[in-house]
Amino acid sequence: MTIRDDTDPLAAYADEFATDGAVHLNGNSLGPPRHSLGDELDRVVSGQWAPRQVQGWFQDGWLDLPRTIGDRLAPLLGAGPGQVMVAGETTSTTLFNALVAACRLRGDRPVLLIEAESFPTDLYIADSVARLLDRQLVVESHGEFDSYLCEHGGQVAVAVTAPVDFRTGERRAIRPITTLCHDVGALSVWDLSHAAGVLPVDLDANAVDLAVGCGYKYLGGGPGAPAFLYLPARLQATVDFPLTGWHAHARPFDMSPVFEPAAGIECARTGTPPLLSLVGLHHALAPLVEVGIDALHRRSVALGEFFLDCLAQRRSPLLERLASPRDPARRGGHLALRIPEADKVERVLAEHRVLVDARPPDLIRFAFAPLYVTHEQVSRAVDVLCHATEGVL
Amino acid sequence: MTIRDDTDPLAAYADEFATDGAVHLNGNSLGPPRHSLGDELDRVVSGQWAPRQVQGWFQDGWLDLPRTIGDRLAPLLGAGPGQVMVAGETTSTTLFNALVAACRLRGDRPVLLIEAESFPTDLYIADSVARLLDRQLVVESHGEFDSYLCEHGGQVAVAVTAPVDFRTGERRAIRPITTLCHDVGALSVWDLSHAAGVLPVDLDANAVDLAVGCGYKYLGGGPGAPAFLYLPARLQATVDFPLTGWHAHARPFDMSPVFEPAAGIECARTGTPPLLSLVGLHHALAPLVEVGIDALHRRSVALGEFFLDCLAQRRSPLLERLASPRDPARRGGHLALRIPEADKVERVLAEHRVLVDARPPDLIRFAFAPLYVTHEQVSRAVDVLCHATEGVL
Repeated sequence: MTIRDDTDPLAAYADEFATDGAVHLNGNSLGPPRHSLGDELDRVVSGQWAPRQVQGWFQDGWLDLPRTIGDRLAPLLGAGPGQVMVAGETTSTTLFNALVAACRLRGDRPVLLIEAESFPTDLYIADSVARLLDRQLVVESHGEFDSYLCEHGGQVAVAVTAPVDFRTGERRAIRPITTLCHDVGALSVWDLSHAAGVLPVDLDANAVDLAVGCGYKYLGGGPGAPAFLYLPARLQATVDFPLTGWHAHARPFDMSPVFEPAAGIECARTGTPPLLSLVGLHHALAPLVEVGIDALHRRSVALGEFFLDCLAQRRSPLLERLASPRDPARRGGHLALRIPEADKVERVLAEHRVLVDARPPDLIRFAFAPLYVTHEQVSRAVDVLCHATEGVL
Repeated sequence: MTIRDDTDPLAAYADEFATDGAVHLNGNSLGPPRHSLGDELDRVVSGQWAPRQVQGWFQDGWLDLPRTIGDRLAPLLGAGPGQVMVAGETTSTTLFNALVAACRLRGDRPVLLIEAESFPTDLYIADSVARLLDRQLVVESHGEFDSYLCEHGGQVAVAVTAPVDFRTGERRAIRPITTLCHDVGALSVWDLSHAAGVLPVDLDANAVDLAVGCGYKYLGGGPGAPAFLYLPARLQATVDFPLTGWHAHARPFDMSPVFEPAAGIECARTGTPPLLSLVGLHHALAPLVEVGIDALHRRSVALGEFFLDCLAQRRSPLLERLASPRDPARRGGHLALRIPEADKVERVLAEHRVLVDARPPDLIRFAFAPLYVTHEQVSRAVDVLCHATEGVL
């Protein structure tokens, strides 16, 4: 089998990342740092903060960084400028802000609908928002979600789902659900955590209402990197967020006692944002934006297909354990195999420096981040996987 | 006048900070970095994240860091262990979480009371919380706050105030208000942003209910460093926070679809916290904790008194412009002078590398952070101030 790295110009990006010799197949959980991150942090700490102190907020662009990062990220999401904000909060809290605001835009509708397969924190936050706003939380499985919307859509204020199932990697097309939501007068809110940076989501073209996502998965912003929020221009004048921190004020430095939301995407800001973590995310986005989301997706698909080809050649029974769609057009950036004693297999893989992500009892996920995984590494990972599963399969 | 640095062992700490030759009198806004921060960030990025990737959450203590930082900070606040959490959100959002939870603990009372002199973001957040929970926001000035509590206390769910006025530095004693709150059955919530790290607040001894504060002022955690939240053990079993992110779950890695709050202070967590900014705060706290809050406060008072002594000797009319209490026992870590064209004077001071913080039109604040300001610097700052105000006074 030809190992294709030699002919793929994107393979050269792998040298930029500090993977420390590991095969890094858990970029759906946490990507590695770029080698240059240390210098970038030093540039900010020693070159901006130390000499200019608090004036860095104005002279070094810190104050604008939440929007600067949002605008850098926007093309990866298919969003025009001025519609993405990285306020500096965690993903859970950002979703909270989005869901309260979305429900308020449909004040007369009782139901907050969420897909049962959502990442658990989305379920927790949706439940909290429903309780706060006295709405009814309805949790429907993937298979029943659309039919609930068809049958009870007139009751639904907001429908929350994700374009990639965090367990199986199965894709959910954004446009049909969003269109269905709009047909029944509901708003669609998307959690893009497992899609951003690896899968085109075309937020503007799909007329998505609100969306949030992690900064630390395929976007590579570092452990717990702040989340992003997408709010299209058409909703910015009417949205009403609950996290009314002073950075969301129209004139924050007037120190007015009365809150007046900023115009545009600035209304999605909150308090004073955590600079060091913002810098990490901003720095991580540069190579992704340089490559572009379509090329990123193509390479991720190629790596995933190569993984399956290797499996087919070397241990075809493993292929039967695929818990993800076989068609790459129906997957996000990762795929999953059902393997008994997943925890144990994950540990054996880790001992051989192949990093994957097990979901006990029997799911192992393999993520194909486009810029730091190579075909040679994938081939090596399959060898190790064949070895690691000898005892359990 | 004797310049006392020679005899004060705390003066040696100034060498640890990257003040870049400036006299840093705006530590009430943003403290300078320690020289060692770059190495600390490199230790985490290159020594933990790169080699151990996502396993850093478990093997390098990242997962516990929100509580580890809280426990490191606790003695500076007069709090026992297990009662302070740095969840990783901004101060505004942390206050939001605290106020919703506090109001819920007094579900039958209609009023959320806040002091008019609060930092504006506190007013915005209190207003947002009152609206969400259908409570009445009552804003009373410093002078009327206590009497409102005396007269209408039975209606008050939560009373929000701060131990230091962010403009004038005037102290507000914590115990009498907290006692008054408890006498009428209300909860007291304190914003410690302008006190933490410079003024003893004795949260446990004062029986404070909830408190929040910035990580980036006297605590020195860096631009936008995450906020802390204090929740005493006695309230941890009954509190009900709205930001129910998965890190606040009793067993986050079970991925249960139903939220069950963690026991203890872990219930104050939210989502996956921003590691780099947490590391900045954790690192900044070390010398403060080493010195202890009483010695920090003593030195801040000594520096402030020395500033006023220098003013009295060199330009006594400036002393008449003191907008803060003359008695240091009635001030926090900063004091303020009323000076016309405050913006302009601030700029002249900055040109001479004396960093202060103007609040237009006529307030200039001088903060005496204990570990990186020296008596020699204060003397120099007064010389520059005398020069800068020659034209306007």
